Amino acid sequence: MAPKILLMGELFWAGPDAEELLGGIAELVPMKSQSREEFFKDCAPGGRYSDIVGIYHEHLSDKIVGPPNDELINALPSTCRWFAHKGAGYDSVGVKAAKARGMGVSNTPGAVDEATATTAVFLLIATMRRFSWCEANLRAGGFNPPGVEESARDLSGKTVGILGMGGIGLKMANYIRPFGCNLLYHNRRPNSLAPPDVKYVSELYNFLGQLDVLMVSIPLSEKTRGFVGEKEIRTMKKGSIIVNTARGPVIDEEAMIKALQDGHLGSVGLDVFTKEPEVDQRLKDMKHITLLPHVGTENQDARRKMERTALVNLKEFLTTGTGPNLVPECQ
Amino acid sequence: MAPKILLMGELFWAGPDAEELLGGIAELVPMKSQSREEFFKDCAPGGRYSDIVGIYHEHLSDKIVGPPNDELINALPSTCRWFAHKGAGYDSVGVKAAKARGMGVSNTPGAVDEATATTAVFLLIATMRRFSWCEANLRAGGFNPPGVEESARDLSGKTVGILGMGGIGLKMANYIRPFGCNLLYHNRRPNSLAPPDVKYVSELYNFLGQLDVLMVSIPLSEKTRGFVGEKEIRTMKKGSIIVNTARGPVIDEEAMIKALQDGHLGSVGLDVFTKEPEVDQRLKDMKHITLLPHVGTENQDARRKMERTALVNLKEFLTTGTGPNLVPECQ
Repeated sequence: MAPKILLMGELFWAGPDAEELLGGIAELVPMKSQSREEFFKDCAPGGRYSDIVGIYHEHLSDKIVGPPNDELINALPSTCRWFAHKGAGYDSVGVKAAKARGMGVSNTPGAVDEATATTAVFLLIATMRRFSWCEANLRAGGFNPPGVEESARDLSGKTVGILGMGGIGLKMANYIRPFGCNLLYHNRRPNSLAPPDVKYVSELYNFLGQLDVLMVSIPLSEKTRGFVGEKEIRTMKKGSIIVNTARGPVIDEEAMIKALQDGHLGSVGLDVFTKEPEVDQRLKDMKHITLLPHVGTENQDARRKMERTALVNLKEFLTTGTGPNLVPECQ
Repeated sequence: MAPKILLMGELFWAGPDAEELLGGIAELVPMKSQSREEFFKDCAPGGRYSDIVGIYHEHLSDKIVGPPNDELINALPSTCRWFAHKGAGYDSVGVKAAKARGMGVSNTPGAVDEATATTAVFLLIATMRRFSWCEANLRAGGFNPPGVEESARDLSGKTVGILGMGGIGLKMANYIRPFGCNLLYHNRRPNSLAPPDVKYVSELYNFLGQLDVLMVSIPLSEKTRGFVGEKEIRTMKKGSIIVNTARGPVIDEEAMIKALQDGHLGSVGLDVFTKEPEVDQRLKDMKHITLLPHVGTENQDARRKMERTALVNLKEFLTTGTGPNLVPECQ
């Protein structure tokens, strides 16, 4: 009998990949639970999922059974040894509980690098050029709104700083290079994969003080919550721009809104928010910023790559005992 | 007495450049005429502009005296030997009349390459990812609209074709290359400056049939009016995208709207329209497309570069008899 993998959420795009990767080596068990309570019962001895060895997790399942936090991880049967999360960010996953019980957690980092970095470039251009304002004015029956020429800038010659030089930050750097920006990055340590003309700045405030645009690309953790706060924003030059495609809470949203209101920040391009899916009304009322509803990875190609990467982790776990994208907290 | 240059329109950003370039070698005469009729009178013998030798032309002056077409060019005093138009496209300028009377017309081609190509990249990403729809939904009180994941795509692996490989097309190619697209171009003849991995396709329909995205970058002339028509659009694959940052009339807007309505075109990203500043209501009602109000060059850096380039042409005309950006029709 093939080992059972519980599918928490559907495979929307990678059906063919599942057949190719897991066909014959695993039995895929769709989640049937209709509530968190029922899910816990289904995991208990004798329950529907009592003998699963791994999990495929897609965040839409959270709407039914809630987040896969420590409580949920601890409710899983002891047979379950791998939790393959579909997504780059895994802040919702109870990695501490997983580590404690020796269960591996994997994410899908490389799969969304392109989609997320492309979104960041879009927000960079949109904010530098005030394009959301332009389109809103056209759609509302006008044409070219006054004030754009004065506030909009070309990218060339501007200093753009990438905060966090992981896979997504690297893609951003590569995408932005031809635009003729002066590119800097700040990271806990230099990344040897960064192109030589993208300069590492080790001291955070020295980094921030040089920027026309800050591109935020650090994962959310207890250490990075509120990382870009009042002091960091005020260290940036007047009129500068922040782009965030990482997670909302890495920026102190209240400090950012204040800096937008008093003109210290010239604009922001946000794909993520502190209280998603709620977006602060003060942000929604600002014309000169760009707001996206967390769609950084929202396209069929990126989704298929994510789903496939999660399945590759499960296949490798089943055949070798560990997956290629085991998160650092579980190593 | 320094030769007189008539300023048709203000210098918004290049005041310091004017001083640097023309200080001491020309007298700048601001346009005072309040109508086309008055302008013609001011150009006649004894009139305010009767002894000007050159013109700086900024399109906002058209709102007062109308377009600088053959009629206007023919009304200029015979002393006027140079017409320095601020802008890349000079379809509004009566080049035929200028040529006939031996007057040079210059445009400002390189100055807007970056700004226009950046706008094209923005429209490429916006349409591939359906980002205008996402933002409109968020601003209207929702968050992530259903249907985006299904229709949005990553750029990598898609075939993007640039129609017209001049300075703007070249910039586009350089900006798009890192995204991993398969890049093609079609032009009257190959451009030796095109990167070697950007493939020239000499036959138009062979070119169009391969594309996921068509980037339109050809100037408007009587030859190119309606260049992308019903047949050209239908040669493209179902679901493909058109981006236009050139001029509205190079596309048959009616054929394009029909193709959007019946789903042959997946999306369009437009900075230009046939009847600007009017935009067809059917376009404004479509959520899955991106519409900008002709802001391809709308930023202070690009505007200053354009103004400066027009002034450089006047300086060179005054000191050497011809400017570096004399348009081909006047050569």
